[in-house]
Amino acid sequence: MALIVKKFGGSSVANNERLFNVARIIEKDYKKGNDVIVVVSAQGDTTDDLIAQAYSVNPNGPSKREMDMLISAGEQMSISLLAMAIETLGLPVVSLLGWQAGFVTDSHYSIARIKRIESERLRAELAKKNIVIVAGFQGLNKYDDITTFGRGGSDTSAVAIAAELKADLCQIYTDVDGVYTADPRIVKNAKKLDEITHDEMLELATLGAQVLNNRSVEMAKKHGVELEVLSSLTPDVKGTIVKEVVSMEKTIIRGVAKDSNVSRISIVGLADQPGIAFKVFNRLAQAKVNVDIILQSVGRDGTKDITFTVTKDQCDAAIESIKALSDSLKYKHVVHDESVCKISIVGTGMETHPGVAAKMFEALYDADINIQTISTSEIKISVLVDIKDAERALNAVHDKFIH
Amino acid sequence: MALIVKKFGGSSVANNERLFNVARIIEKDYKKGNDVIVVVSAQGDTTDDLIAQAYSVNPNGPSKREMDMLISAGEQMSISLLAMAIETLGLPVVSLLGWQAGFVTDSHYSIARIKRIESERLRAELAKKNIVIVAGFQGLNKYDDITTFGRGGSDTSAVAIAAELKADLCQIYTDVDGVYTADPRIVKNAKKLDEITHDEMLELATLGAQVLNNRSVEMAKKHGVELEVLSSLTPDVKGTIVKEVVSMEKTIIRGVAKDSNVSRISIVGLADQPGIAFKVFNRLAQAKVNVDIILQSVGRDGTKDITFTVTKDQCDAAIESIKALSDSLKYKHVVHDESVCKISIVGTGMETHPGVAAKMFEALYDADINIQTISTSEIKISVLVDIKDAERALNAVHDKFIH
Repeated sequence: MALIVKKFGGSSVANNERLFNVARIIEKDYKKGNDVIVVVSAQGDTTDDLIAQAYSVNPNGPSKREMDMLISAGEQMSISLLAMAIETLGLPVVSLLGWQAGFVTDSHYSIARIKRIESERLRAELAKKNIVIVAGFQGLNKYDDITTFGRGGSDTSAVAIAAELKADLCQIYTDVDGVYTADPRIVKNAKKLDEITHDEMLELATLGAQVLNNRSVEMAKKHGVELEVLSSLTPDVKGTIVKEVVSMEKTIIRGVAKDSNVSRISIVGLADQPGIAFKVFNRLAQAKVNVDIILQSVGRDGTKDITFTVTKDQCDAAIESIKALSDSLKYKHVVHDESVCKISIVGTGMETHPGVAAKMFEALYDADINIQTISTSEIKISVLVDIKDAERALNAVHDKFIH
Repeated sequence: MALIVKKFGGSSVANNERLFNVARIIEKDYKKGNDVIVVVSAQGDTTDDLIAQAYSVNPNGPSKREMDMLISAGEQMSISLLAMAIETLGLPVVSLLGWQAGFVTDSHYSIARIKRIESERLRAELAKKNIVIVAGFQGLNKYDDITTFGRGGSDTSAVAIAAELKADLCQIYTDVDGVYTADPRIVKNAKKLDEITHDEMLELATLGAQVLNNRSVEMAKKHGVELEVLSSLTPDVKGTIVKEVVSMEKTIIRGVAKDSNVSRISIVGLADQPGIAFKVFNRLAQAKVNVDIILQSVGRDGTKDITFTVTKDQCDAAIESIKALSDSLKYKHVVHDESVCKISIVGTGMETHPGVAAKMFEALYDADINIQTISTSEIKISVLVDIKDAERALNAVHDKFIH
């Protein structure tokens, strides 16, 4: 007998047919004698629909406190409907809202962080042999007001419960059957991974693999929670296990990812003085701009260039921040380019295998693709290429490493 | 400065236009310096839609605990949307779920009774000068589970808050602008009442006036809460005040009502022995059948007849109960008639004005309508007539008393 936490996203419970599909997945594990806790998101487009309704009432944006009150109703409906579906199978079940399940959060409405789970109720329901359906994405702050966790928050809810109750397994059901070496919609040779480490998963999530929410993987890593990513439509197909240490495999490259949400900004002709990098990036940090790749050119004519990337929505804020520095920072001009794409390879132990970077560059050279910028970390190598070359680059790099 | 509790039903907040209409009604009272608490039902048909969705998942009927979890989401959405509408007017506002407003109930899901209101949060929000929007119809039981109050439960929520906080006024907004002497859709001479007592309102509600929920009027009577029934579409038109004692008026008849949800059952040819009425009605009480009018004929040939009325949905249960008594109860046969209608006049002090009953019977005689059964109480006289004569009877009686 084990304790299993399962999380189903909105598309997995979008209609009655899907609800019963999920109910039968749960039934199977419960009838084997396991304790089962299920975390559910709102059905289908419910959350988006509620947000649209809120903006139709207040186009300038409602207060976040009231928005959280509104959208948390979405999971309230999905948990009770799923519980009703499970009731028809003759199984004991109870649905719990975030606060009933003990989720205590800080007071940052719409992006709340979980402070702790007061798990007495969860434990009591398991002791009664109830299947427990928990509303994901939501908790309660110290004012007894409802908070939500932001996009992907239900993954975090599931991992938090698994960590708190030391679950034997935490299964994240999505509409793909695991983590792939690349996006299968773009790379036809993409292969499903049996295993991947938390760190590798984090890099892939950041890079736009869009399988697991980043906060949930960080939390899983911190608390040593083993995750399985699998599909609710093919629940009997083994998914991908995300865990701390994975067994050796032939390939050291776990995946290849493409991220188009990138703007490249260059400050050209900076006077070469001490502290210019500090000035630039301190200012950007104050403006809450998250900088990704940073590259500083070697000097030329007593000036140097600094190039960095940000997400597209932060491009304007970044450029304004730089321009606001013009009093204390001497430079020729600022240019930005939105027609770029980041291609990355991820794999633990990459740094102990010489030649990985060279092999990546060779793949791009063979495909006649120009590399604009290079950035490396212990488990990742990223390059910027022109957006028009993005898909070809992804395939070329993928097929070079993964056969 | 006063404390005003306002309740708006589902049709009053059915869409954005209606939400803003309600927001402006609230704004007016708030800007006069009043403390304002607003109780809201779910929007339009939301509750019915959610119930239909639940039955589509489980056609045999979901558990009441999960049903309450589901349908209470309806008010959660309406309170936050109304709060957002009020935010656009630049006013301070906060929405509260039933449990946040302190509603503690028993554990009879779907028909829960309010045990008390723990009003610290309500008082704190008023102290902060917030307009407080409260989800009607819902509370929390001792297991920390959500309960609902049944149809018309939002009226009860509003009256309970008014009683707890000793509000100066409790306004119930509906889609009619007050209580009428008869249903204006049937009786063209129906007149709006300025005032009516709680007792008279209770009789009229029971008789199908469908303006105020009965439980809410009972609670208002018990706690001496004065109600005003008015329309959210014409909020500046004075409505009807429901209070303990009303000023003398010329007419002693407050209203005339018709109730078609009646079955008449007769037990014919009962052996005339002591205790037969006890046997019959004790058995019906055990079967949870509510009996309305009771009539026992004087004896004939050593037998008597007992006639009583029940609501149509309880007719089968009543007849089965009688037949189950056939061992200990000797009678010829049981007959029932569903083609009957109850016409009633209601008015405090009726018993001190002789001739009221005679005047009612005269009206029916003039209209050539046969009276099947008569029943009287201190403030009410009811007759059963054939269903085909119902509307004519209603008009005849109404116009006899109210000019």
